[in-house]
Amino acid sequence: MSSITVPPPKCLQKTFVAPRRHMFGPGPSNVPPRILAAGAEPIIGHMHPEMLEIMSDIKSGIQYAFQTQNNMTIAVSGTGHTAMECAIFNAVEPGEGVLTAVNGIWGERAAEMAERIGARVNSIVTTAGGYFTSEEIDRALAKHKPVLFFLTHGESSTGVVHPLDGIGDICHKHNCLFLVDCVASMGGAPLHMDKQGIDILYSGSQKVLNAPPGTAPISFSERACQKVFNRKTKPVSFFLDMTWLANYWGCDGKPARIYHHTAPVSAFYSLRESLAILAEQYVKYIADCHMLYCKTKPSDPLKHSFFHMLPTVTTIVAPPGYDWKEITSYIMKNHNLEISGGLGPSVGQVLRVGLMGGNSSKASVDMVLEALRDALRYCHKSKV
Amino acid sequence: MSSITVPPPKCLQKTFVAPRRHMFGPGPSNVPPRILAAGAEPIIGHMHPEMLEIMSDIKSGIQYAFQTQNNMTIAVSGTGHTAMECAIFNAVEPGEGVLTAVNGIWGERAAEMAERIGARVNSIVTTAGGYFTSEEIDRALAKHKPVLFFLTHGESSTGVVHPLDGIGDICHKHNCLFLVDCVASMGGAPLHMDKQGIDILYSGSQKVLNAPPGTAPISFSERACQKVFNRKTKPVSFFLDMTWLANYWGCDGKPARIYHHTAPVSAFYSLRESLAILAEQYVKYIADCHMLYCKTKPSDPLKHSFFHMLPTVTTIVAPPGYDWKEITSYIMKNHNLEISGGLGPSVGQVLRVGLMGGNSSKASVDMVLEALRDALRYCHKSKV
Repeated sequence: MSSITVPPPKCLQKTFVAPRRHMFGPGPSNVPPRILAAGAEPIIGHMHPEMLEIMSDIKSGIQYAFQTQNNMTIAVSGTGHTAMECAIFNAVEPGEGVLTAVNGIWGERAAEMAERIGARVNSIVTTAGGYFTSEEIDRALAKHKPVLFFLTHGESSTGVVHPLDGIGDICHKHNCLFLVDCVASMGGAPLHMDKQGIDILYSGSQKVLNAPPGTAPISFSERACQKVFNRKTKPVSFFLDMTWLANYWGCDGKPARIYHHTAPVSAFYSLRESLAILAEQYVKYIADCHMLYCKTKPSDPLKHSFFHMLPTVTTIVAPPGYDWKEITSYIMKNHNLEISGGLGPSVGQVLRVGLMGGNSSKASVDMVLEALRDALRYCHKSKV
Repeated sequence: MSSITVPPPKCLQKTFVAPRRHMFGPGPSNVPPRILAAGAEPIIGHMHPEMLEIMSDIKSGIQYAFQTQNNMTIAVSGTGHTAMECAIFNAVEPGEGVLTAVNGIWGERAAEMAERIGARVNSIVTTAGGYFTSEEIDRALAKHKPVLFFLTHGESSTGVVHPLDGIGDICHKHNCLFLVDCVASMGGAPLHMDKQGIDILYSGSQKVLNAPPGTAPISFSERACQKVFNRKTKPVSFFLDMTWLANYWGCDGKPARIYHHTAPVSAFYSLRESLAILAEQYVKYIADCHMLYCKTKPSDPLKHSFFHMLPTVTTIVAPPGYDWKEITSYIMKNHNLEISGGLGPSVGQVLRVGLMGGNSSKASVDMVLEALRDALRYCHKSKV
């Protein structure tokens, strides 16, 4: 191999050991040993019978987590953003209208994705931390006549959990599909895909599910399937084309599975295990998730500062006079614990504490509160 | 939670243990314990300093594996198909010309991907197992004037390794970028991105690298960057937009990393470890990869049946008179060993044996040959 011109890199000779951290930001959350162990099982083929059974189990687990009977329920081989594109790419054709509700970063990103594929995009916008009334949504749908309405259930950038009841019916009255992002809320805030009339719902693996990032549950209602599978044009992505994915996941009723792509086998092991834990713990997770909020007494200096109550990601107004970066750095350095600052429109305004799935325990809440109080004592109020 | 209408699925109560198999098909290949252990390290944040260091290590490892100095070298948070779309989505604008070389399944898929984003697609086509001369490529480029030429280095569906020398120069003479798929060849067949004038090169994690599927190395030459970063339109995918990914991977020279998506942290741990092993073993891998071919004697009944020599995936003409499915099933059942049939244009015509990375050992070769001979003895020749 005298022809090698780029030598083996020295940096790869170092053994990597991940630091142990309390992952109490908005995600990824700590992955429990049981899920890590599942992901470390030996590899099998992406179309071996055992793998198809795992995919079937994952489908059942997502149906439970989403509270849906939808047959068209799968996990996308990618992150939450991939699922977001999967939803928009499949549901929308060029020139069709999309309405996005923007009250944080996710509505903005959905709008950008829809624009890129040539959709006619309108947005309703409110301040970071705000939400939309049914009347506002109804008026905007009547005005813009979109084929798809995007709403974020758990807006992780601002800590808002958006009410969902009734919005599906409003969308359907306007012959519009209701697309909901529940990446940051699923499993931590009550959610009922079927009862709430949600047509497309997607999430991520690295929040309440406590699996590594890299897989993303998604489900399509019968109404959504009617649109997705009767398009005039092909979706821009072959990889995310639901016609192919429906077959790969055994959702299209055809006897033979056709090779589409090589699924992330190990990540599906982890996802299956995380859904198994969710099936055992869901009721407890939902109950525990409000703990950080409830635990702080009305007299607590932190209490007054909560935004709207997304149970999974508690958003606290950045304490006035402090440099928020100094607070998060102090807590990482002295408590080995991640909490994070704002994102998108909330940058500089808030601190975000994620206590998701197995992380939403009394011990974690105490640890976060102690770390926050400690940081407020030792960080320099005068700096900003 | 009386409002739950979909009960917890019983199938998730079963403990999943993956069967132990010799993964000697065209991929995924067996993942060695060292890589499985790396993937099971505790999770950290996708933008923690240690993660950025891992990404930097991955970049160095890919530069070595690709034999390139390209700064714009990253891993895509997805499978080989995702990297394929990343290359095409970023390099091509609607209405521009793409030429694909079709001698198996991958050229067809590249053509389909380019068509979906509104490119003007032409193909040169040869029979499954065939390849293209420089003159044929030169003539087709002169005729169709594409901005991008797609060629598969290791065509895993037919076992052809395509010659690369000189093709980059021909492409550049026609002001065309040279895009190469090395998913099935990288690390097992000699490859020199810079010397061979390849402008965009991508691979997958689950072949010679022996990592789980789900991450995909990709690199862009300076010439490719000139086109990718001077587009008139945005790529159809936000998730795969190289302007965002270049920043996320610290390749754009800007001091601050902006949140784009949540990378598959655990999968990047595995990928880093697999690249560390490749850096140690590359020379041996390249040498060992021809073993199955060399090991069979000229007088061997299997010898005559090889197609062209892709060292990683040895393609054997399906023995006449046998049902190939009976052979692969017999070997899976009696030898706990996966080899596979054809794919796309080679279905029913060939058996495919992948001995990749750590799997390309003398012991594996003996195991495969023994299993094949055993199957030929016991399967029913009369059936077809």
